[in-house]
Amino acid sequence: MISKNKIKFLQSLSRKKVRDESSLFVAEGEKLITELMVAGFQFKTIVTGNEHFDKFNSIQCEKLVATDDEFKKISILTTPSKVFAVCTQRIYELNDSFLNDDLTIVLDNIQDPGNFGTIIRLASWFGVEQIVCSENTVDCFNPKVIQATMGAIAHVKICYTDLKSFLRNAREEGRVVYGTFMEGENIYKSDLAANGLIVFGNEGKGISDELENIITQKISIPPFKKNNLTVESLNVSVAASIVCAEFRRRKM
Amino acid sequence: MISKNKIKFLQSLSRKKVRDESSLFVAEGEKLITELMVAGFQFKTIVTGNEHFDKFNSIQCEKLVATDDEFKKISILTTPSKVFAVCTQRIYELNDSFLNDDLTIVLDNIQDPGNFGTIIRLASWFGVEQIVCSENTVDCFNPKVIQATMGAIAHVKICYTDLKSFLRNAREEGRVVYGTFMEGENIYKSDLAANGLIVFGNEGKGISDELENIITQKISIPPFKKNNLTVESLNVSVAASIVCAEFRRRKM
Repeated sequence: MISKNKIKFLQSLSRKKVRDESSLFVAEGEKLITELMVAGFQFKTIVTGNEHFDKFNSIQCEKLVATDDEFKKISILTTPSKVFAVCTQRIYELNDSFLNDDLTIVLDNIQDPGNFGTIIRLASWFGVEQIVCSENTVDCFNPKVIQATMGAIAHVKICYTDLKSFLRNAREEGRVVYGTFMEGENIYKSDLAANGLIVFGNEGKGISDELENIITQKISIPPFKKNNLTVESLNVSVAASIVCAEFRRRKM
Repeated sequence: MISKNKIKFLQSLSRKKVRDESSLFVAEGEKLITELMVAGFQFKTIVTGNEHFDKFNSIQCEKLVATDDEFKKISILTTPSKVFAVCTQRIYELNDSFLNDDLTIVLDNIQDPGNFGTIIRLASWFGVEQIVCSENTVDCFNPKVIQATMGAIAHVKICYTDLKSFLRNAREEGRVVYGTFMEGENIYKSDLAANGLIVFGNEGKGISDELENIITQKISIPPFKKNNLTVESLNVSVAASIVCAEFRRRKM
């Protein structure tokens, strides 16, 4: 049993304002929480069901046991897992040490938490260690983002900044800025710089006008036309996966 | 204004049982409904807001006008669009004419509607005209699947069948059956048959044991290891996009 006030507090962490003020976020499920533990995240609370989760014994923090009904109240999952944690956010500032000399993902106004979480997950798979986001991109500590990362949030550094000046500076320092556009050059025929920055745009509107003229090289994923049965766009996380795979294939 | 009974009926189409019995499904948004119209789907009802949607004038069916509150009641979207349609399902049987001699996607127990919809959308982009699903894969007429296709449901034929006997027959007819496995051969080093069948497995469990030994060739997407910062899996729609892109790149 956990108190009503505690339940209210745990629920309130689904709101960005509360997360911002407390610098906390929630994570659910054994796999995800294990990833956070191994990556050295700081835990504030762990809630478990009747099962014992011995593997979390070593974590120093508040430990609570909740009933199934209580899990239903605090969980964002349709089928609540039996482990729920509150952790301290890792917040990165864009400074000289943030950006390494390797492939970097840049997100311009991504709104769907599932898309963002999927992009963090594929970044981790492809060894992309940093993601730079526009200020209006969805919060990376949104519980739906965290769940969609499947733990990859523990391995990828994310920061929010004004992309216009960030990308201008990157170009001045000699980095190539790629962006996906319908009319871009076929990615399979393009030169791809291993340490490029790749901009992916909003789900409905694509890359914003104010960033478009900072892009060094417009690229596109060629559709495979057969009887004109093609749809006109790809989901942004699908586009990101194909583009990152192609950048990495070239280095293998 | 639309009647309470009508609202109840429109809401009921989010349940598989009701969809199965009526052979109907719902679609929301101008773009999606336009795709269905152009593809010749049969409409039963179109609900619009106060705006006129002249482009749907030519469709012969029941036309209703709903208030914002009514749209909130019938819509599955957080921000309801002002067009909502009820259409007749196109149901395909697996027979000799279903399968063409081209790349085919096979889905084994995909459960997440967003994943399924995204896979239908990328199939359309890559000119994959057919998807064969296990009986336990989520219903392709689930409203969340339909919305995630962004209209691609109009261009891709989908059928449900027993995959075990389907894949056995396909192999006997000389088709190569690919499946994604962690321990599979690097896809970039594999021979890929242009008319292959590619099996993608369940989000948590992967490809089921009973199908594994029917797979002709196990393939994998190589992670890009750096400091061991890789997560252990990719989202199934991300895997599908990278694999389909690579099959199509070879033919370009």
